[in-house]
Amino acid sequence: MQSRFNTIAIIGKFMRQSAVQLMKNDLVDLASHLRRQNISVVFEAQTAEYAEIIDYQTISLSEIGQKVDLAVVMGGDGTMLSVARALKESGIPLVGINRGHFGFLTDLRAEEMLQSIDAILAGEHQCESRMMLNATVVRNGKTILENHAFNDIVLKSGLRLIELEVNIDGKFVHKQRADGLIVSTPTGTTAYSLSAGGPILHSSLEAIALVPICPHTLSNRPLALSSTANIDVTVVKMDEAQISFDGQSQLSLAQGDCINIVRSKESVTLLHPADYCYYDMLRNKLHWG
Amino acid sequence: MQSRFNTIAIIGKFMRQSAVQLMKNDLVDLASHLRRQNISVVFEAQTAEYAEIIDYQTISLSEIGQKVDLAVVMGGDGTMLSVARALKESGIPLVGINRGHFGFLTDLRAEEMLQSIDAILAGEHQCESRMMLNATVVRNGKTILENHAFNDIVLKSGLRLIELEVNIDGKFVHKQRADGLIVSTPTGTTAYSLSAGGPILHSSLEAIALVPICPHTLSNRPLALSSTANIDVTVVKMDEAQISFDGQSQLSLAQGDCINIVRSKESVTLLHPADYCYYDMLRNKLHWG
Amino acid sequence: MQSRFNTIAIIGKFMRQSAVQLMKNDLVDLASHLRRQNISVVFEAQTAEYAEIIDYQTISLSEIGQKVDLAVVMGGDGTMLSVARALKESGIPLVGINRGHFGFLTDLRAEEMLQSIDAILAGEHQCESRMMLNATVVRNGKTILENHAFNDIVLKSGLRLIELEVNIDGKFVHKQRADGLIVSTPTGTTAYSLSAGGPILHSSLEAIALVPICPHTLSNRPLALSSTANIDVTVVKMDEAQISFDGQSQLSLAQGDCINIVRSKESVTLLHPADYCYYDMLRNKLHWG
Amino acid sequence: MQSRFNTIAIIGKFMRQSAVQLMKNDLVDLASHLRRQNISVVFEAQTAEYAEIIDYQTISLSEIGQKVDLAVVMGGDGTMLSVARALKESGIPLVGINRGHFGFLTDLRAEEMLQSIDAILAGEHQCESRMMLNATVVRNGKTILENHAFNDIVLKSGLRLIELEVNIDGKFVHKQRADGLIVSTPTGTTAYSLSAGGPILHSSLEAIALVPICPHTLSNRPLALSSTANIDVTVVKMDEAQISFDGQSQLSLAQGDCINIVRSKESVTLLHPADYCYYDMLRNKLHWG
Repeated sequence: MQSRFNTIAIIGKFMRQSAVQLMKNDLVDLASHLRRQNISVVFEAQTAEYAEIIDYQTISLSEIGQKVDLAVVMGGDGTMLSVARALKESGIPLVGINRGHFGFLTDLRAEEMLQSIDAILAGEHQCESRMMLNATVVRNGKTILENHAFNDIVLKSGLRLIELEVNIDGKFVHKQRADGLIVSTPTGTTAYSLSAGGPILHSSLEAIALVPICPHTLSNRPLALSSTANIDVTVVKMDEAQISFDGQSQLSLAQGDCINIVRSKESVTLLHPADYCYYDMLRNKLHWG
Repeated sequence: MQSRFNTIAIIGKFMRQSAVQLMKNDLVDLASHLRRQNISVVFEAQTAEYAEIIDYQTISLSEIGQKVDLAVVMGGDGTMLSVARALKESGIPLVGINRGHFGFLTDLRAEEMLQSIDAILAGEHQCESRMMLNATVVRNGKTILENHAFNDIVLKSGLRLIELEVNIDGKFVHKQRADGLIVSTPTGTTAYSLSAGGPILHSSLEAIALVPICPHTLSNRPLALSSTANIDVTVVKMDEAQISFDGQSQLSLAQGDCINIVRSKESVTLLHPADYCYYDMLRNKLHWG
Repeated sequence: MQSRFNTIAIIGKFMRQSAVQLMKNDLVDLASHLRRQNISVVFEAQTAEYAEIIDYQTISLSEIGQKVDLAVVMGGDGTMLSVARALKESGIPLVGINRGHFGFLTDLRAEEMLQSIDAILAGEHQCESRMMLNATVVRNGKTILENHAFNDIVLKSGLRLIELEVNIDGKFVHKQRADGLIVSTPTGTTAYSLSAGGPILHSSLEAIALVPICPHTLSNRPLALSSTANIDVTVVKMDEAQISFDGQSQLSLAQGDCINIVRSKESVTLLHPADYCYYDMLRNKLHWG
Repeated sequence: MQSRFNTIAIIGKFMRQSAVQLMKNDLVDLASHLRRQNISVVFEAQTAEYAEIIDYQTISLSEIGQKVDLAVVMGGDGTMLSVARALKESGIPLVGINRGHFGFLTDLRAEEMLQSIDAILAGEHQCESRMMLNATVVRNGKTILENHAFNDIVLKSGLRLIELEVNIDGKFVHKQRADGLIVSTPTGTTAYSLSAGGPILHSSLEAIALVPICPHTLSNRPLALSSTANIDVTVVKMDEAQISFDGQSQLSLAQGDCINIVRSKESVTLLHPADYCYYDMLRNKLHWG
């Protein structure tokens, strides 16, 4: 059977120096395996440089979106988050291979990656679309930042409380004093949001979770909204605070800043093995039973 | 302007003996006010009997669905829940008038009810559709109960833990040991589910919350699913347990019972005042800020 | 070295029919091992009957307190709880041998029990005193029940909320509506109390935890008191409720019942291996890290 | 009756410019009321300067401990915390007068302060001793900071998780990854600790609470220890973190820092009105019932 994936990009993230050689071997194995099937293989430039890969064409992360049909990501959930954000406009599907422990997003095991990839290329896969969030930060009437997140957008104060005013679809919700506020996609609800007491939203639910971090008012509970919600968060009072996207700090906030958050127009496409099950992943990662 | 509500049913719930006369006066005021506008007014039979109302036609709760265009309910959230369940098939809209404190569902104040009702009859209202849940209990291959709920369906053990196996859309989720499990509509998430640590799901979100009650495994967290989810809960082990619908006990469960829960085909239609706001209601009831 | 334990009682709990033979072997091994050291060994009567042990003197649980110097308990935490309650007056020390998984209270592994017991007899052990709770239930001015608990005393409603008034040391604390209330020793805080959101109180802390079960008021949080606290809980409103001691139901409550709870005068003495560490046990059982 | 308080210091905290005149009037009323009773009144120097008080002797906060018999503090809980820390060595009792809303620590109402103070001077009061915590930060073998707290000592990371190793009384407890860790006195358990999900420890309980902030491992629950506990927290991994005392930042932490926390030798003495009740305060502040 002819795969619809003619060009495949390989992206790796090197966490520890000690694992470079091991990972390099895996990357090369994967690449030559694909090449043998007459698939055109390109390496993300930094990956190639770090792993000293010389026999393959390299390409920048930003070009990948235009030029390949599938991106295979080797690493942890953090790597998948970065790649997903970087390839947002392209809509090309992602496959995640985990090293070490099973991730929420990287669901192919390195030990079985060649068979797993072959199955996926043969069409034996589940294709899942996941929503992202978009935020615009407005200061003094001017947009000073626009960015998106696959897991969550977090407003977080330093030492002291931050006071935030939340409006949804133009309606006043409340002013809350807390350590911060997490605005999460369903994907993000198994990450930081969960530590802050948030619910798990199934990855297919078209919803956005608002989870306060250590709220002063004990009845300020997590709230799940339709993904069509238009969320405005205004910084009423703060000493020091920042906004981050998928755990990457982006901007120090100032009093009066207004952050508008909506569902992104673009989605992330994940390819899972045919036997992938969201609940298996939850049970496994959260040690249920 | 001609109202589209030609026949209106009035339903009341009498909580305390001391308040009967007060409530009777309100019911009669409302009825005569509507009659003066050439609206045909009928009383729910028990309401009429209890309040000794004699000048109006009476009708059983089950007939209301066929014969009226609008039901006005005076009482608390509990009364609204019962009426909504009883009128499920009919699709006729409900208006709730609260006595004493503002309810999550009864949003007209008794003091201003005549003006509020006039506004609603004149078309100045918000019309909201809320989902319900349907449960089927199967024992030894036979369906022994089918019922629906507007707030929640609760499986709850007596003194000891109950062990439940949860499958969603035919996929195994987990076995959990807990005091019980709450399966809640968005409407129900501000009721019992909230006390058990569940999130608030916006009333417009097409979702179902699964909230464990005092789970033995601390990582068994509340889970929100799409409203299309097909939920099967099997009683694996128990000493004593029951299933209840909106807080009304219905059946003692037995080991091996399988409870299938899905979104009802029918919805509840609520008419709110034009200035109704879901977030105002949350803020008010949960004492935010 | 001469042990101070001249007479030792052996008590076992048989959970599953399939494990009887295995457990019987262990019990006999232990008994003959002790007898070889000239220790007088007696079996708790039901244990002996169930395991068909005939070569040893048997003794009722209630007599054990008067006649032995040490009780060795084989089973799970539940067995330890029962034995501790039964031997409350005696003050004789307990050693727990777990089968299968490590318990919070049974900290000797069956596989190494002979060496472990030898070490304990040789004085290589930690001796720990743990507090218990005492409850008196007064109805219509008469004491209708008095009992004690090693883990917790739980007041729990059936389907509906129970309304309780709590007074401590004669001072009004609050009326709370909830599914119930857990009054827990430090030992009990790693059991049911933890599932209900309670804190862990170190086993050496002289304290009592009051943990509401699914409280209606979200700010009704767990409260830890000095062990000298005199706690009065009055049943203000209920449909159906019961009081239980260490998970054993004891009495159906009635409206107006007043339950007085204080620290017991007697304590439980546990002997742990010399290398026992409370934090190891927590880390192990709660899967920290 | 001759009061045992011959010299009284008055300390005020000015929150908002708009309230200065009102507060100044209260301060002067209080001072002249005390002077009329032949009590020697001194003003804390900054208070006097800010309120432009000229007829009274002024004294620095650090001298107050040596020279007065009682300190009357007008302000909120934050002011009480600072004064308590500053006067730690002295052991002189504190009285708190709240402006606006009732505080956890400031329990005299400004409106009735003259009568309340008279009653206290006449001996109609409750005297309560509250514990404090002491922390020593050791870096590269050298003590770089020693400080104490009345509410809590908080280790908190910036954007990313911090990994901490906790040892208690020389025993390894666990490594935990979280946003931070709160080490709280009973007094502090109604403050930040409560927002992070901690229990309420009664003010008289000799205990220390360890409350993780958004822990990665969901079973990392709050832990209450005896006040004799010797707590060592080592910073295993971090990007950016700081340690604060009663919400006042003190030091940026570095990887490898070891923080030793124990109960202070000194205590805070609070004088409450004769009818003060800890539970009334909880009920009031937490809106129970």
